[in-house]
Amino acid sequence: MLWRIAARPTGRKLTAEDFTRVDDPATEPLGENGVRVRTLLLSCDPAQKGWMENAGGYAAPTEVGDVMPAFGIAQVIESSAPGFKAGDFVEGSIGWRHEGVLPPRLIERIEASPETLPLHLGALGGTGLTAYFGMLKVGRPFPGDTVVVTGAAGAVGSVAGQIAKIGGCRVIGIAGGPDKCRWLTDELGFDAAIDYREGDVGRQLKELAPGGIDVLWDNVGGEILDKLLARIAMHARVVICGGIARYEQPGRPAGPSNYFNIVFKRATMGGFITSDYETEYATARARLAGWVKEGRLIHREDMAEGLENAPETLMRLYRGDNVGKLVLKVADPV
Amino acid sequence: MLWRIAARPTGRKLTAEDFTRVDDPATEPLGENGVRVRTLLLSCDPAQKGWMENAGGYAAPTEVGDVMPAFGIAQVIESSAPGFKAGDFVEGSIGWRHEGVLPPRLIERIEASPETLPLHLGALGGTGLTAYFGMLKVGRPFPGDTVVVTGAAGAVGSVAGQIAKIGGCRVIGIAGGPDKCRWLTDELGFDAAIDYREGDVGRQLKELAPGGIDVLWDNVGGEILDKLLARIAMHARVVICGGIARYEQPGRPAGPSNYFNIVFKRATMGGFITSDYETEYATARARLAGWVKEGRLIHREDMAEGLENAPETLMRLYRGDNVGKLVLKVADPV
Repeated sequence: MLWRIAARPTGRKLTAEDFTRVDDPATEPLGENGVRVRTLLLSCDPAQKGWMENAGGYAAPTEVGDVMPAFGIAQVIESSAPGFKAGDFVEGSIGWRHEGVLPPRLIERIEASPETLPLHLGALGGTGLTAYFGMLKVGRPFPGDTVVVTGAAGAVGSVAGQIAKIGGCRVIGIAGGPDKCRWLTDELGFDAAIDYREGDVGRQLKELAPGGIDVLWDNVGGEILDKLLARIAMHARVVICGGIARYEQPGRPAGPSNYFNIVFKRATMGGFITSDYETEYATARARLAGWVKEGRLIHREDMAEGLENAPETLMRLYRGDNVGKLVLKVADPV
Repeated sequence: MLWRIAARPTGRKLTAEDFTRVDDPATEPLGENGVRVRTLLLSCDPAQKGWMENAGGYAAPTEVGDVMPAFGIAQVIESSAPGFKAGDFVEGSIGWRHEGVLPPRLIERIEASPETLPLHLGALGGTGLTAYFGMLKVGRPFPGDTVVVTGAAGAVGSVAGQIAKIGGCRVIGIAGGPDKCRWLTDELGFDAAIDYREGDVGRQLKELAPGGIDVLWDNVGGEILDKLLARIAMHARVVICGGIARYEQPGRPAGPSNYFNIVFKRATMGGFITSDYETEYATARARLAGWVKEGRLIHREDMAEGLENAPETLMRLYRGDNVGKLVLKVADPV
């Protein structure tokens, strides 16, 4: 089975009709320099909707009819490419398919045991690297700083907040619902959590962070970003990591009308793409792995199952239905 | 004569009714540590409306009834403060008044001849320092970069663009009307100018800067900022210097809905306040003075006359009626 892109969801919500299921695709020839893989785990990432729209121009362009792109982990069945052999675990651009032949440039061999595979999509994979580089390179937290994270119970947000805690900061998470908020404070060690569905975020934040926000990590955009920009501290760093608000409404959400506070507070607002720091991946992964081992970085998977459920699982992400890293399990390793 | 703040123009246009004229104010006692000055020149700055609103919290708070604050240049009449004597030229927070007693902390003695006084409000004063630090510290232009300046025919914009030219960049100015545009290209040496009143700014910019904008200097905000954010290049630096758009409409203008391009382009958007770089003022002034002397930095005053015309002169600024530095001449030096 595989799933193809059926339509571009530009300017509207993603729906099940944006994907076409192909139950019995033809077996691809291995060819020269090919790696035939069986998909084990698929990562669900907010950026996937953007890839379908070709938004931003930073990822490989997609066409309607393409196999739906997705990061994931797979196991090699056979290979004509040097460096890959049957049984190897690989991670990379796998796509929504049970099986396929990939060029070696899209995948990377990883050393992992079957139990630790999900960690390679999460805290040690794209999720962890995004949180690590965004926080260290753009957020630049200093011990004692007040750090606020939106979408804090999501995959990247929960890791970003914990990295700020490791960095000696006071961390406040913003999330939807009491369960997510309790998870942040009781299990991840956030100093406080604000349920944006209950009461006024700005007023609560004023009480929790009277000195303002030194590092603002935003995964959401829209109205919440605007409210938080009104509360930044002098020389604040605003890390724009995601804009989940733009996925659940038609068109683009309004821009932050409080952006001018960047001037009053001599602040900077920055974006980043993890792959810009590829030369530092090894260091980052080693540090993240150390924190996980020491129990300072807690990772949680929200695990769904079955490739037939891929569209429904991805759509959960934009509704904020997940806690931690949303992963789709496709098959067990051999 | 002096002018007092009569009302806070928050969320609306400035009007003549926001000021109260006092024709015969009582003569203030000199007191201890006082400097009695006679105002010569007053600077007209967009920030003045913000000061009346107490917006941003970065300037000394104002009250209705206060003398209208303004930077300016004055001449000392008498002084009981050390370091000031009759005849000295001083610059600083003078306010809209013919004469007054100021504490020494609000003013600074300057070495200037009567002819060069306006230069000390402009290219060698707050205007020049704002352009210098914003461009060097936040814009960080590199030779060959494409730099776009909005409000380019204004005081700060015209200097910022010329500094980028000195830095070896290709500079495109955006201004209102053919006269301003001609001034930018024919006299200041900008590589191109776009009249935002004629045709689509985004389309014209696409032709003039097909590789995108490396440094975007924004004095305007609103719709133009949004259009330009759609055209930034990879790793662009966006310098938020001003937001003149917010002065001519009720409420706040919409925020830039294209802010998310900061992520796609790994860009940064930053604000700054010149006084953060006070330790570097001497270096900056020396470099600016050198460029003026060499004819590489051209400075133009748009000179109005008479303290009675202060409100009307300031309001011209928000309508974009000035070319270069808008200065109100109050009196000649003795």
